[in-house]
Amino acid sequence: MENVRVIMCGLGAMGSGMARMILDKKGIEIVGAIDSYEGKIGKDLGEVLAIDKKVGTIVSGDFNKTISETKADIVILAIDSFVKNVYPYIKTIVENKINVITIAEEMSYPFVVAKELSEDMDRLAKENGVTILGTGVNPGFVLDTLIVTLSAACRKVTSISASRVNDLSPFGTTVMRTQGVGTTPEEFEKGLKDGSIVGHVGFQQSIPMVAKALGIEIDEIVETREPIISNTHRETPYVKVEPGMVAGCAHIGYGMKDGKAVITLEHPQQIHPQSEGVDTGDYIDIKGDPDLHLSIKPEVPGGIGTMAVAVNMIPQVIASRSGLKTMVDMPLPHAIENSFAEAVKYYK
Amino acid sequence: MENVRVIMCGLGAMGSGMARMILDKKGIEIVGAIDSYEGKIGKDLGEVLAIDKKVGTIVSGDFNKTISETKADIVILAIDSFVKNVYPYIKTIVENKINVITIAEEMSYPFVVAKELSEDMDRLAKENGVTILGTGVNPGFVLDTLIVTLSAACRKVTSISASRVNDLSPFGTTVMRTQGVGTTPEEFEKGLKDGSIVGHVGFQQSIPMVAKALGIEIDEIVETREPIISNTHRETPYVKVEPGMVAGCAHIGYGMKDGKAVITLEHPQQIHPQSEGVDTGDYIDIKGDPDLHLSIKPEVPGGIGTMAVAVNMIPQVIASRSGLKTMVDMPLPHAIENSFAEAVKYYK
Repeated sequence: MENVRVIMCGLGAMGSGMARMILDKKGIEIVGAIDSYEGKIGKDLGEVLAIDKKVGTIVSGDFNKTISETKADIVILAIDSFVKNVYPYIKTIVENKINVITIAEEMSYPFVVAKELSEDMDRLAKENGVTILGTGVNPGFVLDTLIVTLSAACRKVTSISASRVNDLSPFGTTVMRTQGVGTTPEEFEKGLKDGSIVGHVGFQQSIPMVAKALGIEIDEIVETREPIISNTHRETPYVKVEPGMVAGCAHIGYGMKDGKAVITLEHPQQIHPQSEGVDTGDYIDIKGDPDLHLSIKPEVPGGIGTMAVAVNMIPQVIASRSGLKTMVDMPLPHAIENSFAEAVKYYK
Repeated sequence: MENVRVIMCGLGAMGSGMARMILDKKGIEIVGAIDSYEGKIGKDLGEVLAIDKKVGTIVSGDFNKTISETKADIVILAIDSFVKNVYPYIKTIVENKINVITIAEEMSYPFVVAKELSEDMDRLAKENGVTILGTGVNPGFVLDTLIVTLSAACRKVTSISASRVNDLSPFGTTVMRTQGVGTTPEEFEKGLKDGSIVGHVGFQQSIPMVAKALGIEIDEIVETREPIISNTHRETPYVKVEPGMVAGCAHIGYGMKDGKAVITLEHPQQIHPQSEGVDTGDYIDIKGDPDLHLSIKPEVPGGIGTMAVAVNMIPQVIASRSGLKTMVDMPLPHAIENSFAEAVKYYK
């Protein structure tokens, strides 16, 4: 059986992690690698990934050339969070008749934030006989796929509340800035207004994905972002937070119907939550017949979870009917300990 | 859009519950009902279900006539736990070009216990362009589908332990007898030997289903059944257990590889577990990269869970490619609050 052939596009923290994961797996190989950073271009992928062996694939800075000249089954695209920014790349990949998985958060359910581009991508994918999937740990898994799956045990669902409580301490300056960690409450408010503090990207995806799958009507998605004001001293290599300063962003998304929240997703993100006795974890509460209460403690780790979910969906995506798909359309996600080529064959 | 048309075959506790659930849903109707009990035959389904309205479907005792003369999209088969006993019914249903969902435990993954019959059913389903799925709460959901889905967030899985701790108190005499509740330790041992005490039916399904999905090799499935000796007085309307007597059966299944358990599923079933401080719940622990710990407390209820999972899979099964399928092959399971006919259309 031939190996699954992957092109890695984007070799940041996530892209590099996925590349390392793939190199550790059977029946799959990396046949192309693309990054825009000069320091990586022209080097063997093994060197860029800081692993102890040559991969035999040289990192290219030329996206169009690599995509059009490399025979591949799928591209893993890890360059950006937003539909409008990844769209041109996806278009080129699909027109070259290659499947694509992206961890761009908005692509996990792009239909609400980018209706026309979504229709366009779906049409292009079908014309070219390939599949597009956006996924990751969240959106893509914890606050949507898991909720959808758990609901199967309910005869009736009246409302859903879920929350993902995580620890931002391992992350660097970009995440500190976009979550407002280390700001004063006044700076936090200003950051929200000027768009420099964004909180979580995913509620406009997870909420409609769950609603659509379960056939729950919502007429509006409302989001609130509040500063998590620290009562303790908290510190990481990248940021210091004194009592009274902001340790993170409590971001909540509400799927509303007739003025009532039917789907409530919370994602409070902060550094060192345990310094105030907050346990990290993923929590899902379904109200219905029956009520169900699920927890994962500690939470599914963000970085590793995103790498794993995206790479593990490769077989389902390659074997899928063509089009722009979501996790709801795919056969059950799962880890892959055998050959990826075998896993693809299973679905065909 | 036309309603999904269902034939209910078997109107025991589970079949009746599923029929009531379906009557409460949109875009779906019951066009046929079959049972072997004389007291139900010839009556309107509403009367048999003890609901306050006529359904307009008369319960038939003639399986072959009802299957061959009723235009239906799917049969829900709830008559037995074992492949060899449901096979003749499934054969007839499939030859009449009707899809089938069964809650027969062994049918959730029949390939190990009944390889030849499974191949035969797969061939028949493909020849007739229909789909066969076995499902339920367990096997079918808690100790397989949920494990498979959760594993997607792991880069690597080295071993899996999961347990489903439930309370048998609501059940009647049949369950008490097959789980050995109310026996002495000596009677329990004798019951295991003569086959009257069976424990859980599902490990020969859940373990290979998880192993196959994740590509984990196992060379043997080992099962152990131990009496849960009570230290307390426990009582239900159907059984009395004094200290020293058996309150239930601790049944464990091991998926072994080279003498080591790589998948361990535990299902201790007893009456009033809380009388000795045991909390009911579903627990999944994956050892790998990362380790993940999931719990659902209290456990997904057995009866309602089985009804819900089976009925909620109707759209995926109707829209599926033909063949004998498992939950791993299907798009994500989920509750259905909108029309079943719409839900079918979504997948087509």
